[in-house]
Amino acid sequence: GIDGPSLLADIAETAAFGGTAKGGICRLALGAEDRQVRDWLGTQAAALGGVLTVDSMGNQFIHLPGSDPALPPLVMGSHLDTQPTGGKYDGIYGVLAGLSALRALQRSGYRMRHPVELVNWTNEEGSRFAPAMMSSGVFTGAFTQAQAYGTQDARGTTFGQALEEIGYRGAEPCGQHPVRAYFELHIEQGPILEKEGITIGAVTGVQAMRWFDLRLSGQEAHAGTTPRAMRRDALLAAAHVMIMIDEIAQSYGADTRATVGVIQVQPGSTNVVPGEVQMSLDLRHPDDDVIAAVEERIRTEAARQAEQQGVTLSMKRIWDSPAVHFDPDCVEMVRRAASLTGQSYRDIVSGAGHDAAYMGHICPTAMIFIPCRDGLSHNEAEHAEAGDIVAGANVLLHAIMAADAH
Amino acid sequence: GIDGPSLLADIAETAAFGGTAKGGICRLALGAEDRQVRDWLGTQAAALGGVLTVDSMGNQFIHLPGSDPALPPLVMGSHLDTQPTGGKYDGIYGVLAGLSALRALQRSGYRMRHPVELVNWTNEEGSRFAPAMMSSGVFTGAFTQAQAYGTQDARGTTFGQALEEIGYRGAEPCGQHPVRAYFELHIEQGPILEKEGITIGAVTGVQAMRWFDLRLSGQEAHAGTTPRAMRRDALLAAAHVMIMIDEIAQSYGADTRATVGVIQVQPGSTNVVPGEVQMSLDLRHPDDDVIAAVEERIRTEAARQAEQQGVTLSMKRIWDSPAVHFDPDCVEMVRRAASLTGQSYRDIVSGAGHDAAYMGHICPTAMIFIPCRDGLSHNEAEHAEAGDIVAGANVLLHAIMAADAH
Ligand SMILES: NC(=O)NCCC(=O)O
Ligand SMILES: NC(=O)NCCC(=O)O
Repeated sequence: GIDGPSLLADIAETAAFGGTAKGGICRLALGAEDRQVRDWLGTQAAALGGVLTVDSMGNQFIHLPGSDPALPPLVMGSHLDTQPTGGKYDGIYGVLAGLSALRALQRSGYRMRHPVELVNWTNEEGSRFAPAMMSSGVFTGAFTQAQAYGTQDARGTTFGQALEEIGYRGAEPCGQHPVRAYFELHIEQGPILEKEGITIGAVTGVQAMRWFDLRLSGQEAHAGTTPRAMRRDALLAAAHVMIMIDEIAQSYGADTRATVGVIQVQPGSTNVVPGEVQMSLDLRHPDDDVIAAVEERIRTEAARQAEQQGVTLSMKRIWDSPAVHFDPDCVEMVRRAASLTGQSYRDIVSGAGHDAAYMGHICPTAMIFIPCRDGLSHNEAEHAEAGDIVAGANVLLHAIMAADAH
Repeated sequence: GIDGPSLLADIAETAAFGGTAKGGICRLALGAEDRQVRDWLGTQAAALGGVLTVDSMGNQFIHLPGSDPALPPLVMGSHLDTQPTGGKYDGIYGVLAGLSALRALQRSGYRMRHPVELVNWTNEEGSRFAPAMMSSGVFTGAFTQAQAYGTQDARGTTFGQALEEIGYRGAEPCGQHPVRAYFELHIEQGPILEKEGITIGAVTGVQAMRWFDLRLSGQEAHAGTTPRAMRRDALLAAAHVMIMIDEIAQSYGADTRATVGVIQVQPGSTNVVPGEVQMSLDLRHPDDDVIAAVEERIRTEAARQAEQQGVTLSMKRIWDSPAVHFDPDCVEMVRRAASLTGQSYRDIVSGAGHDAAYMGHICPTAMIFIPCRDGLSHNEAEHAEAGDIVAGANVLLHAIMAADAH
């Protein structure tokens, strides 16, 4: 089985790459700290005797051969990038647990039929470069590599430039890597498993998610002289739009999620009525039809709210990731692995997006969740218990072994 | 009288220092473009035979001697810094018209009893370094120079560093400069003169203004997994606070102005519920008692709004500039100068802050307004008519001559 102490030590060691004062990690995709943790992973691959491949999106694959050279690899993985105020587990856990599973296979001498691989996907978070799950998206054909390369961060650096800068633009064309099946282990990032006291979530799918870019355009004016009736205040209009979005989301039930996470105002001066606002909207629901209805309602109402403030609004959808239903056989392998290793388990739907959501389009896929404290994620205080961490890694290992036998 | 064409040419020439594609100016205090326009003014001083002094806040004074060496100077002036999306007239007009008045006095051979000076005040706008009217504030003792030097811009550069960097930290201690009386010419920046078809405003005072720094503190969380009921969304709370401020301001009548011009969100990621928001509030009213009452109402209600969203709020007053009433004799000199030069005029209260507001605390002071198109200011489209520009400059010249005779 998994060497628990060494997995926990790897989590502690890599947390130093971008570690924050509050005990979290700030390791944005393709930054200096991302390079450090990638280099670290490369060193581990060599120590393990694995073969490292980097593809043209910077995805890292570590390969261990199987007994049958004709079979494509079974792949485990997740991501090593984080949010600006990210925790030590989101993504990282899945990669390091996969590494510990490779080590366990090597150590045991157990010979798998399929090759087994670990993947570290580039820019899963989508925080520096939108959208999320970018490189599994290119891998599976959801976007083109050219689209991804051209994406700019807030400073105008493109993804392509940043990839070159850290030296991780690999030779293998992204998407050419064969995959027999894909398993991703992750913290739940929500409150369900913890609340119910269950260790393993057998993830049956991922809810639908859409991202939007909203722009409000009013008129800059003097804060001291401009009467209220003459104002076309883009920020005040944005405030009305935000509240309206929240109300609409709530009216579609507790499963609806609507979040404005980014807002930029121009010119951004204390004594100037704002002329321009740009803001993001992250919208989610488990049901494709409901998310479409929520979007439609928001479009109509937001335009009306803005108009009432004398402001024009544009709302552009920049990402659409429909609801995903994982492969029933793979999900069943996860349930059995949990049962075999003596862990409590239940089915669960993911509220967060994962590279597995895109991989599910091209190969049999499933995910494994473990609880995290207070359901908190995308927060420096994110926490998972050592016992759950090791339990989840053993479920991953057994799911892969089951897939090999399948 | 004033040489109109040369004044208009100066306005056009200096508009190139920080000129924008939309025909406005972006010349933030103590930036490279501010240095350029200061150097230009120094060259004009030399050409005029005036003596240039720079004080320890970077204020530039150009001195022409009078016939009585015992008398302190009559001072005209305004500022050459702009908003990020500023126009070609705000502040600039007052400085360049003052320059044209000095030239007119030189050319005419008319010998004033008092010395006459022109001043360019540093950082009147308060956009890069808060608050506004910073250097006239230090000059008149409203803040200490140490406070001003320590003020940071959004990048963490202090005012003191920026002043050194552009080479405008002068030897004369700020505030030691004698002033007999102060006159400032400015565009109205509001709609009144234009609407009434009047050329000259005899400014009787400046309304009260207060600036606040608001901070909302909630909890970062995952946008996809965190149920609405568990969220403590600092940006959604900020939206509620902004709307509430607008409603309170409106309830205190049409003379109340409340503006949120700056908002920053942390961590600022599309898929993270915002944990922290910082925003500015600019509050104004002609009456000191009313502005105090509005502030009090906002404090109570804003805390309640934030609490309802599970967010804590702090609201710090960072600037308090009480209502100012200018010197009746000086105001009367402006009315007479308007009458003498054949211009229509009326009394008016300034909605914008001006260096004259602080100067009024230490010496007899008044201001002169001319109309601006659509009352629009702090906007690249800011515009004043050539006829009004020259008329205002002649009123300034005659007011100074009246003060000399007084
Ligand atoms: N797992 C995770 O947090 N991924 C980021 C994409 C998302 O926002 O759901
Ligand atoms: N005149 C002017 O726009 N000054 C800036 C200070 C203020 O906000 O009123």
